[in-house]
Amino acid sequence: MFEFELQATDGRARAGTFHTPHGTVRTPVFMPVGTQATVKAVSPRDLHDLGASVVLANTYHLYLRPGDERIARLGGLHAFMAWDGPILTDSGGFQVFSLAARRKVDDDGVTFRSHIDGSEHRFTPEKAIAIQENLGADIIVCFDECAPPDDYAYNTAALARTHAWAERCRAAKSRPDQALFGIVQGGVFPDLREQSARFLTSLGFDGYAIGGLSVGETKAEMHAVLELLDPLLPPDRPRYLMGVGTPQDLVEGVARGVDMFDCVLPTRMARNGSALTGRPAPDEPGRPGRLNLRNARFADDPGPLVEGCTCYTCTHFSRAYLHHLVKANEILGHHLLTLHNLHLMLTVAREMREAILEGRFVEVWRRYTGSSSSSPWGD
Amino acid sequence: MFEFELQATDGRARAGTFHTPHGTVRTPVFMPVGTQATVKAVSPRDLHDLGASVVLANTYHLYLRPGDERIARLGGLHAFMAWDGPILTDSGGFQVFSLAARRKVDDDGVTFRSHIDGSEHRFTPEKAIAIQENLGADIIVCFDECAPPDDYAYNTAALARTHAWAERCRAAKSRPDQALFGIVQGGVFPDLREQSARFLTSLGFDGYAIGGLSVGETKAEMHAVLELLDPLLPPDRPRYLMGVGTPQDLVEGVARGVDMFDCVLPTRMARNGSALTGRPAPDEPGRPGRLNLRNARFADDPGPLVEGCTCYTCTHFSRAYLHHLVKANEILGHHLLTLHNLHLMLTVAREMREAILEGRFVEVWRRYTGSSSSSPWGD
Repeated sequence: MFEFELQATDGRARAGTFHTPHGTVRTPVFMPVGTQATVKAVSPRDLHDLGASVVLANTYHLYLRPGDERIARLGGLHAFMAWDGPILTDSGGFQVFSLAARRKVDDDGVTFRSHIDGSEHRFTPEKAIAIQENLGADIIVCFDECAPPDDYAYNTAALARTHAWAERCRAAKSRPDQALFGIVQGGVFPDLREQSARFLTSLGFDGYAIGGLSVGETKAEMHAVLELLDPLLPPDRPRYLMGVGTPQDLVEGVARGVDMFDCVLPTRMARNGSALTGRPAPDEPGRPGRLNLRNARFADDPGPLVEGCTCYTCTHFSRAYLHHLVKANEILGHHLLTLHNLHLMLTVAREMREAILEGRFVEVWRRYTGSSSSSPWGD
Repeated sequence: MFEFELQATDGRARAGTFHTPHGTVRTPVFMPVGTQATVKAVSPRDLHDLGASVVLANTYHLYLRPGDERIARLGGLHAFMAWDGPILTDSGGFQVFSLAARRKVDDDGVTFRSHIDGSEHRFTPEKAIAIQENLGADIIVCFDECAPPDDYAYNTAALARTHAWAERCRAAKSRPDQALFGIVQGGVFPDLREQSARFLTSLGFDGYAIGGLSVGETKAEMHAVLELLDPLLPPDRPRYLMGVGTPQDLVEGVARGVDMFDCVLPTRMARNGSALTGRPAPDEPGRPGRLNLRNARFADDPGPLVEGCTCYTCTHFSRAYLHHLVKANEILGHHLLTLHNLHLMLTVAREMREAILEGRFVEVWRRYTGSSSSSPWGD
C-alpha cells in the first residue's frame, strides 16, 4: 500500500501513480477541496463525472462540526460524504494558525477559539493525528506551524516546533491504512527549507507536503523554494504543494517536481461569479485569467465561457445565461461555474500527465503560462 | 399539435398524453417550477435524470430580469436555460397581484412596481401574451386577475376582467407553436366558478388552468371547486391546477379530474432544510409530512431520509450528513434535498398514472392520503 511509482519524467516534471486503499491516484493531480465534507456546490457524482480522483477535507472544520468522533461512529469520512475515492485530510495547522488573535501556540501545541461559537479547544500533534484517524482519510498529514514566509526568526522557531511535532505525529499514528505525509516548512529561506527537507526525509514519510507557500511571497520566491527542494526530496515519494493554486501555478509547480495540488481557488472563485479561462490574466502578472460573470458585457453574449471547453457548462449554457444566474443569485450559477472551474483544473493536471508520459510537457507549460521560452528550466 | 389523448379514466381520475413541440407530456404530471429560468438548485440534466417532463417558468420574473426580448434574441427560453423538453409559462398575473400595495388594477390592465428596483411597469393581456411569445414556452396562459378566495364582490368584479382579458389574450396570440390555456377563476363560489368554466369553454382553449386555489381557502373548499368543475370542463382538454401543491393535494386533485400541477413547495422546502416524507403530517391536518433536517435528532442518524426511496439522495447519504450540510449552510444540502423532494413529487404523479392505467388509482390515493376510505369519491 501507498507505493508511489514514478512512471516518467520530462525535465523535472514527473508522472506517477500513488496507490491508496480507495484507489490509485495518477499524478500530477489536482485535488478539489471539500472543507466541510463537501466540495462546495457539487455532488460526489459530479466530481466523479469531472474525473476528480482524490478530494481534500479539512480537519479543523470537521473536528468542530460535525465532530470527528461522530464521523467515526457514522463509518468514517468516505461513508459520511459518500465519496468512495481517495481522501486527504490536512492537519488543521493552517486553519488554526490563520485564526491569528484567536490562538496561542506553545511547544506542546496550540490553544484556539472556534470560529463558529468561540469555544476553546486545543490541538497537539497527537490530537491532530487522533482526529485524522477518526476521520479515516487515505492520506493524513503532520501537524505543523505555519509562519509568515519572510520572518526568519519566526520561521526558525516555528520550524523547530514543526520538526518536533513531525516526530510526535509519526509516533502517534496507529492506522496502517493511512499514509502519513510530513510537511516541509521554512518560509522563503533556503537554509531553513533545506534543513526541513533533510530532517523530514531522515525520519521517512509516505509523502512530503510543502507548506507555507502561496501565502504572500512572490512567484519567483515560490519557484526558488520548489527548485531547491526537488533534488532534496526522495524521487520515490509523492510531493504535495499545499493550497496552490492557479492553472499557471500548477504547471510551474509540476515543472519543478511537484505531483499533487489542492486549492479553494476554483470553487471559491465560482461562488464569487467568476470563471477561469486557463490563460494568464492579460494585465495582472501572476494572476489567473478569469471572466467576472457579473459584468454587464456578458448579458447578451451567446458564447460559451471558454471556446472549445468540453465541460457540461460550456457545452450547454451561454455566458448570457450564466450572467443572468449570477445576477439573480441562483444556486445553479454557483454550481455551473464550479463545474467549469474544477473541469479546467483537472484538465490542466490530466494534460500535464499525458504530456509528461509522451515527453512533451513543455508544450503544455507554454500553453497555460503563455510563455514563449523554450523550457521552464531555463536551458 | 397540442392534442390531448385521454388514455384511461379510473373514477374521476384521468391518464392522458399531451403533445407539444418539445415532446409529449404524460399526465397526471407534476411540473417543477423554474421561476428565473432555473429550477432552483438543480441543473437540466438533474431534471432529466429525475424524470421531469415539463417545467414552469415565471413570466413576471423573466420579463423584469433578464428581459423577454433578450431571451428572444438568445433563441428563446428553451435554448436560454438549456431545457429541451416542454415549458409552461404563467401569465405573470399571480405575481403582479401578489405585489399588493405595489400594483394598481384597471379594466385595461395592471400597473405595478418591480420588486427588484421599484421601477414602474404595466401588464395588459396583450403585453402578457407578447412577453410569453418572446419567451417561447410550449404552453402559455391567459392574463388573469387573482382575487382573495372568499370575497364575493371582489371575485365578481375580478372575474369580469379575467373573462374580458381571456378574450383579448386569445385575440392577441399569434404563434401557432404555443398552446394557450384559459384560467378559470371565481374563488370558492360555485356560481362564479360555473360561470367561469362555461364562459371560457365557450371561447375554446387548448387547456384549462384552475387559478385562485391554495391561497387560503380550506382543503374542503378546494375539493368542492374541483368537483364542480370536473364535469364542466371538456374531457378532451388538459386541466391544470395552478400552484398546487403537496403530495396529498396531487392525489386529491387527480381524484377530482385534474391532470397537471406545479408548486414551489418541494424546492422551497428543500432550501429551508426540509424533506417531504410523502405521508400526511401526523399532527397537522392538511399539511404534508416533512423532516426538518435542522433538528438535532438527526445529527447521528445513519438512515436515509425516507426508507425505500430510490432517489440519489436517499440511496447515497444519511440523515446525519444532510443535517450537517444544512447546519453548515452548504449548497449541497439544498441540492440533495431538492433532488429528493422533486423525486417524490414526480414519483407521486408517475405512480398515479400507472395506477389509473391499471384501474387501481384508489390504492395510490390511499397510500398518500393515509385514508382508509374505500374511495375518494365517497361511494
